[in-house]
Amino acid sequence: MIIKSLATKENPFNSTQEIREWIARRNREVKVKVEQIPFSEMKMWHSDEDGSFHHDSGKFFSIVGIDVKTDYGTNNHWRQPIINQPEVGYLGILTKVIDGVLYCLMQAKIEPGNVNCVQISPTLQATKSNYSRVHAGKSPNYLEYFVNAKPENIILDQLQSEQGARFLRKRNRNIIIKVDEDVPVLEDFRWMTLGQIKELMHEDNIVNMDTRTVLSGLKISDYITPIDGLRGMSEFGRDLILSSTTNHSYISTREHLSWLTGLKAKYDLWVSPCSVLDMPGWKKTDREIVREDGKYFKIIGVNVTISNREVASWCQPLVQPMQDGLCAFIIKKINGVYHFLVQAKLECGNFDVMELAPTVQCLTGRVEDVNRPEFYDYVMNARPEQILIDALQSEEGGRFYHEQNRNLMVEADEGFPLDLPPQYTWMTLRQIYKFLRFNNYLNIQARSLISALNYK
Amino acid sequence: MIIKSLATKENPFNSTQEIREWIARRNREVKVKVEQIPFSEMKMWHSDEDGSFHHDSGKFFSIVGIDVKTDYGTNNHWRQPIINQPEVGYLGILTKVIDGVLYCLMQAKIEPGNVNCVQISPTLQATKSNYSRVHAGKSPNYLEYFVNAKPENIILDQLQSEQGARFLRKRNRNIIIKVDEDVPVLEDFRWMTLGQIKELMHEDNIVNMDTRTVLSGLKISDYITPIDGLRGMSEFGRDLILSSTTNHSYISTREHLSWLTGLKAKYDLWVSPCSVLDMPGWKKTDREIVREDGKYFKIIGVNVTISNREVASWCQPLVQPMQDGLCAFIIKKINGVYHFLVQAKLECGNFDVMELAPTVQCLTGRVEDVNRPEFYDYVMNARPEQILIDALQSEEGGRFYHEQNRNLMVEADEGFPLDLPPQYTWMTLRQIYKFLRFNNYLNIQARSLISALNYK
Repeated sequence: MIIKSLATKENPFNSTQEIREWIARRNREVKVKVEQIPFSEMKMWHSDEDGSFHHDSGKFFSIVGIDVKTDYGTNNHWRQPIINQPEVGYLGILTKVIDGVLYCLMQAKIEPGNVNCVQISPTLQATKSNYSRVHAGKSPNYLEYFVNAKPENIILDQLQSEQGARFLRKRNRNIIIKVDEDVPVLEDFRWMTLGQIKELMHEDNIVNMDTRTVLSGLKISDYITPIDGLRGMSEFGRDLILSSTTNHSYISTREHLSWLTGLKAKYDLWVSPCSVLDMPGWKKTDREIVREDGKYFKIIGVNVTISNREVASWCQPLVQPMQDGLCAFIIKKINGVYHFLVQAKLECGNFDVMELAPTVQCLTGRVEDVNRPEFYDYVMNARPEQILIDALQSEEGGRFYHEQNRNLMVEADEGFPLDLPPQYTWMTLRQIYKFLRFNNYLNIQARSLISALNYK
Repeated sequence: MIIKSLATKENPFNSTQEIREWIARRNREVKVKVEQIPFSEMKMWHSDEDGSFHHDSGKFFSIVGIDVKTDYGTNNHWRQPIINQPEVGYLGILTKVIDGVLYCLMQAKIEPGNVNCVQISPTLQATKSNYSRVHAGKSPNYLEYFVNAKPENIILDQLQSEQGARFLRKRNRNIIIKVDEDVPVLEDFRWMTLGQIKELMHEDNIVNMDTRTVLSGLKISDYITPIDGLRGMSEFGRDLILSSTTNHSYISTREHLSWLTGLKAKYDLWVSPCSVLDMPGWKKTDREIVREDGKYFKIIGVNVTISNREVASWCQPLVQPMQDGLCAFIIKKINGVYHFLVQAKLECGNFDVMELAPTVQCLTGRVEDVNRPEFYDYVMNARPEQILIDALQSEEGGRFYHEQNRNLMVEADEGFPLDLPPQYTWMTLRQIYKFLRFNNYLNIQARSLISALNYK
């Protein structure tokens, strides 16, 4: 079922080109105005005495200050603003088998901060505030299918993290369900195959972050029959299946667990609340919370107006990065099996100190001539034939303003060394999926890249 | 190797009876005086303005107040004191194969709060303060073996939680290493087989909590050769091996993950610091922090004097429970395979909202005629032939004063219902070990019972 969905890039409902055009058209039709305004003019939002921002309902999210202490790295104590949203949201994809092929019901969703405002989104994308109807509006579309799904119809159901440098311990429920009954296809929704979605992930800013994280958990090899499934698949697709199923790994999972336990035990992370008005290196004006050196990111207040079939308007804070980022995996065949070069990375908002991250994950603006991140030069100097994935991807457009990361996957040369620095390891896809089933092991940047792996 | 260690209850170094006598003798020889003193007289400890207690070094642990909000259960908002020790400690067992049998180097360790002060402890039991030498003393015995262990000599290496109702997000590094070289056996240390330790776990207060948690992670079936290993094993032992290895489970792991994700998403847990002096229902005097209704537990200050080969004396706060507790697993053969009745339990100090707990976990003093915990009556009324484990076990004697839990394992009758309330599920041992490999899935009470399973 899933294998057919992967292989099928043209579907009777919408060809991939039609989906592209649909998203482009929706982007033309929808007028999204994001206008920076003074914080004091953000309707329905208020600032506490400590400079933090909260919605008047007490729900949604807030911008707070945190004091971070760690014995990891060279910067061992800092303060920064962070998004606090201590609730688990739903990111759900509804699927259905039609004529033997699995289709996902995807949405053309507007998010004001996205580079393309309209991107392909999961069927359901709802904060707890949304689905518990804090906004007193109607219940989100298709919510009832997820709430009432029978255990046997739940394909995947995981708690996964968001960006650890920007969100304080934020997690979402990533869920894929299968329905048997007929489902009405509402306006702004379309049926797509996995193959189509994965193909579009190789283009810039078309598939949103939430789609990428939900699909990252789908272990394709679980749904492929050993012989039939591989028929017609590319050599690279077969190699990915091998990496997903083999017991032969360069480093055992027992050693991975010990490696990660050792790092989590070695490095402490203490995060405590602090006043936004008392963050060295940062200043708060009525227009922004920004670093004095202009680095990293700033918080702005915006008024969003969306003119669509109807006009909606609201105010909110957004996080605006100062530069684009880079998320890159190096992969290498070791004894004939693809291994991913995984990094254990500590970020201040992490739920559990360290998560598994891509080989390189950095803000490009931070990259100076000295102290370039490990493997940065290697991925940036990759020859075209080494590059398997290269696309710009937006981060969550409901919280970030034009934040995009270059998603890069590079196949290492023959001579690439197998020995790695202490915070890096080699993992097969099978091993990555073992960790991915349990919450807070793979970070969102790693998951974004894993989801784009195309088995076609 | 491990199978021989399990089977061997008599060993050339120490028979089980000799170990019993050794522990009893050490308990007679060692004079431990735990004297309650006013908080103000605790040397090296001070109270902050908010009533919290801290060691003057800023290390070890502190007693702080927390404000707990949750939408789980009927009590949705409370304050309480809790032990805060935001550091990962080492709990390590050093093992060695001697004449084809695996031996563990165990320690007769004094802990002032234990019911028997001297109990069988891991080779190494060290807080980060210990091993980073905050106390300016010498390095803990055998630490260097653990620090320098090669990856291939690490049998097990996991981060695991302590009591979620008493510790704020406390975790320890549970580690078992194997050494090849000769190891000096220091005074207070003895070589023991797994079979001996497990046998002693079926007696009251001889094997300490730290030993139990470390050994719980050892998946016995991984070390047993399919045919030879089962020879001479009891029927119950074979049944445990079957439950550890079978793919046939009543409920799939996919469904377990979804069940747990759903519960973690449904129930929120917000924990924030509060003043110890501002906890409704609690009062603080110079002698104790205690509930006005006398329930649950209290914090006391003690002066500990240990007269051994030399005399040591220090002051510290201890947590004193108001009654004993009960930790009970119901197990049942479903389609010929043992399944454990597991509960998802929220406790305020949990690292990740909910952990998998025994079927029944409660303070016996809380049990009234009404609102008895689910399955409480069943386990308390079990007939003798249903009872597989029944022993009193101490919790950590360095933090708790005479806290002990009745560890009970009960085999369900034929007619026991398979359908369970929403927060309960059936798991094979294989499934339990899948979760146990990853951190913060099984709580310490569940692990204590799992460790006592005897495959002899």
